[in-house]
Amino acid sequence: MAMEAAVVVPRGWRLLLLVSAAGLVALGAPQPPNILLLLMDDMGWGDLGVYGEPSRETPNLDRMAAEGMLFPNFYSANPLCSPSRAALLSGRLPIRNGFYTTNAHARNAYTPQEIVGGIPDSERLLPSLLKEAGYATKIVGKWHLGHRPQFHPLKHGFDEWFGSPNCHFGPYDNKAKPNIPVYKDWEMVGRFYEEFPINVKTGESNLTQIYLQEALDFIKRQQAARRPFFLYWAVDATHAPVYASRPFLGSSQRGRYGDAVREIDDSVGKMLSLLQVLGLAESTFVFFTSDNGAALVSAPSQGGSNGPFLCGKQTTFEGGMREPAIAWWPRHIPPGQVSHQLGSIMDLFTTSLALAGLKPPRDRVIDGFSLLPALLQGQLTDRAQLPLRREGAGHPASPSPALPLRDQAPQPHLPPPFLLCWESPGAEPRTWHTPILYYRGNTLMAVTLGQHKAHFWTWTNSWEEFRQGINFCPGQNISGVTTHTQEEHTKLPLVFHLGRDPGERFPLR
Amino acid sequence: MAMEAAVVVPRGWRLLLLVSAAGLVALGAPQPPNILLLLMDDMGWGDLGVYGEPSRETPNLDRMAAEGMLFPNFYSANPLCSPSRAALLSGRLPIRNGFYTTNAHARNAYTPQEIVGGIPDSERLLPSLLKEAGYATKIVGKWHLGHRPQFHPLKHGFDEWFGSPNCHFGPYDNKAKPNIPVYKDWEMVGRFYEEFPINVKTGESNLTQIYLQEALDFIKRQQAARRPFFLYWAVDATHAPVYASRPFLGSSQRGRYGDAVREIDDSVGKMLSLLQVLGLAESTFVFFTSDNGAALVSAPSQGGSNGPFLCGKQTTFEGGMREPAIAWWPRHIPPGQVSHQLGSIMDLFTTSLALAGLKPPRDRVIDGFSLLPALLQGQLTDRAQLPLRREGAGHPASPSPALPLRDQAPQPHLPPPFLLCWESPGAEPRTWHTPILYYRGNTLMAVTLGQHKAHFWTWTNSWEEFRQGINFCPGQNISGVTTHTQEEHTKLPLVFHLGRDPGERFPLR
Repeated sequence: MAMEAAVVVPRGWRLLLLVSAAGLVALGAPQPPNILLLLMDDMGWGDLGVYGEPSRETPNLDRMAAEGMLFPNFYSANPLCSPSRAALLSGRLPIRNGFYTTNAHARNAYTPQEIVGGIPDSERLLPSLLKEAGYATKIVGKWHLGHRPQFHPLKHGFDEWFGSPNCHFGPYDNKAKPNIPVYKDWEMVGRFYEEFPINVKTGESNLTQIYLQEALDFIKRQQAARRPFFLYWAVDATHAPVYASRPFLGSSQRGRYGDAVREIDDSVGKMLSLLQVLGLAESTFVFFTSDNGAALVSAPSQGGSNGPFLCGKQTTFEGGMREPAIAWWPRHIPPGQVSHQLGSIMDLFTTSLALAGLKPPRDRVIDGFSLLPALLQGQLTDRAQLPLRREGAGHPASPSPALPLRDQAPQPHLPPPFLLCWESPGAEPRTWHTPILYYRGNTLMAVTLGQHKAHFWTWTNSWEEFRQGINFCPGQNISGVTTHTQEEHTKLPLVFHLGRDPGERFPLR
Repeated sequence: MAMEAAVVVPRGWRLLLLVSAAGLVALGAPQPPNILLLLMDDMGWGDLGVYGEPSRETPNLDRMAAEGMLFPNFYSANPLCSPSRAALLSGRLPIRNGFYTTNAHARNAYTPQEIVGGIPDSERLLPSLLKEAGYATKIVGKWHLGHRPQFHPLKHGFDEWFGSPNCHFGPYDNKAKPNIPVYKDWEMVGRFYEEFPINVKTGESNLTQIYLQEALDFIKRQQAARRPFFLYWAVDATHAPVYASRPFLGSSQRGRYGDAVREIDDSVGKMLSLLQVLGLAESTFVFFTSDNGAALVSAPSQGGSNGPFLCGKQTTFEGGMREPAIAWWPRHIPPGQVSHQLGSIMDLFTTSLALAGLKPPRDRVIDGFSLLPALLQGQLTDRAQLPLRREGAGHPASPSPALPLRDQAPQPHLPPPFLLCWESPGAEPRTWHTPILYYRGNTLMAVTLGQHKAHFWTWTNSWEEFRQGINFCPGQNISGVTTHTQEEHTKLPLVFHLGRDPGERFPLR
């Protein structure tokens, strides 16, 4: 099924597929919908009541799901913050957009302040594409795609920013290693632990409240200006050191981590309420998800829950990359739906473009596809049947390295679904199939297609780290699966049926 | 707070607290509500969509929760079928009602066909008390409180029975060890695998459909007779060997176990629909729960999911005893509620009596209390504040053995909440507090009060069993917690905070 043919858009703006939103806005035609992406930091699949968290302290997110569509099979593009966020905004795997490392075989990449890299100029990011189409764009919270001037989010399509380029680790020594700066647009307005205090002892910080106000203010301004908006709300209260403002501290049965979740849940409720009060609910597509699985290494006080799944952040087991995901768009998405569409955070790139009436860039490989058939018609798209959304020459566009899969010949002993993830030889334009790919660095660790997941490599973390108490899988130990040496299984992959065994406890072989 | 004072009943039948239902029925007064208890077999907390099962294949149970009240903190009285069911029907711990063993230290008790024991005549069971109060009573499915003639459910208060006295293990050799019989009332109408086929190879059996029809028929008959009813629907399709009827076989993403869950979910939907069609919804209290945690030893093809909890059936970790629980009673229980009441399957005994306007027996210790304050007013009752519901002499009524707790002096190093579970010395009538108690046989393994759980003993199963591949905690291994030797911690209990750490992975000490 060709995606272009499958994209279904609500009545009243079907033409947007052909004409850019900017043009239509100028003509006074119906606006494309606003897009509000709520991206959590280290929040796990199991942290929401609707996903089975026993304390059930997320009434607003649970209501969002009841009024919208829940995705139980939704994945990040990497089990770590930076590459996952780069993938969301570029629609491309970290190995294509440059956010991967090759150090220590299969480690993940991120951008702490010691690292000078960031998102390449050549990447075409979602805010930039939407801005060209007439959207007002804002990022609130954590950027994490590079902290040097050339990587500033306002150079990559955002009109506004309130937040920081990095994690809120600290406090640091001011001279040798300064605290992470906080920006308002181009201007640095302070630093974490200084002008923007975080009390690591008590966990108190009002940052989520600031981020909430920034969001509400932006929404109100765009409504007044009658301009379509793209708001990327990337809060970080659930990333260690977790924090919450005073009214929420101590309010959760789950401790400080739960306090942070409760404050975020409350904030999401306030944003959805504002959309309803302003009459924007039916013209705003809202999607909630997280950048990677809960950081079990910080649990229980500073880390969340991955529910029934194996391990957490940093790993390519389900706990590292399966994410909570909720779509909300009253009168467009029917309430109370559950979609078993195998979804990826990279799909939000293509979906957002489709909502704006735009096609994805054609000069490069895009790994996400549009979720609109799932969202609007309840259709399931088989990722194995998707054509490559790239035209022209058969070689990958620079700077995208080839997927390492291409260097590996298909193994005859792989089960049939996994044969589909190899490039079809000789076809022109060549088709590339997009299952859920689990990378660490430049190593393809595992693949999910349909209900089956195959691990080509297993690794939690090194014995050395593990012996120091760093544990990505506390309480979980599956012989031959949760390995502390890097184990290769490409000749005989470890295969799990995720429907029967979502916890990856019983290898089929 | 005295429970009698706390019991709140809907308007129109408050008087029932004082006068028996039978008397009122005779007088033409408003009837007490019908009671429908849906008791699952080895179904786990994590098996329902509303509790986070990823495939979300229980739309009817999820809707039941959305229209009623969900209990995330609800417990069985034992991690095995027979004692749990005996506790439900007697309102008493297995160690009081006789359903415990002392073999092999801390093993659980059940009644396979080799065992000649059963529920003592001296126990006053719920069907018997409700029948005296004018209720029509029926059990559909598994009795499991003794298979010899004197233990027949119609001798213990049930008017009708369709089902079997035991698990549907088999097929057996007909002579040395016959297949388990199936009864219709007093009459044996066939045997499993013979007149009531179960194909252990394909998993096909139409037993759930028979049990559904028995339930629907009974409800219709009582509605026609205008008689209040107590229906105990104790189906067993989710107990290994799991089965489903042909239309449901292969219908689940989860395999055969999921097929069984889907058929039960569909059946529950049909029962609730019938209540609505007959105009009985507002006069029927429905409660759904399970007898013990999912049997992970049979997972993934024949066992379910305990979600984020540790281990499963047979153990006193949360996975062994925390249960899915949903109450439904339109216009009495407000829709969409979540109650964090620490609840027990034994509370269903006292709650059902309260609904019928009855007080629990006063000649013996009753371990359950009424959930009506939670159900009707959203109140939380602190189990530590409950008085003993027994009057008169200070010695336990025969045949209740004393709780072994009484043989153990309180330890000064126990955290404060756990001191509350000892009997107050010298008071007359002596008070007995009822936290959640986790027994194996006659050994108190653990106690939960509020958010804290203390393990006095830990044990999964023996090394000998474990080495044979019998694993109650597949994929889970927590040093010093999931032990294969029986480890005593009474002098320094292993304490967990279940709010912050529902998976019992991080002992506080």
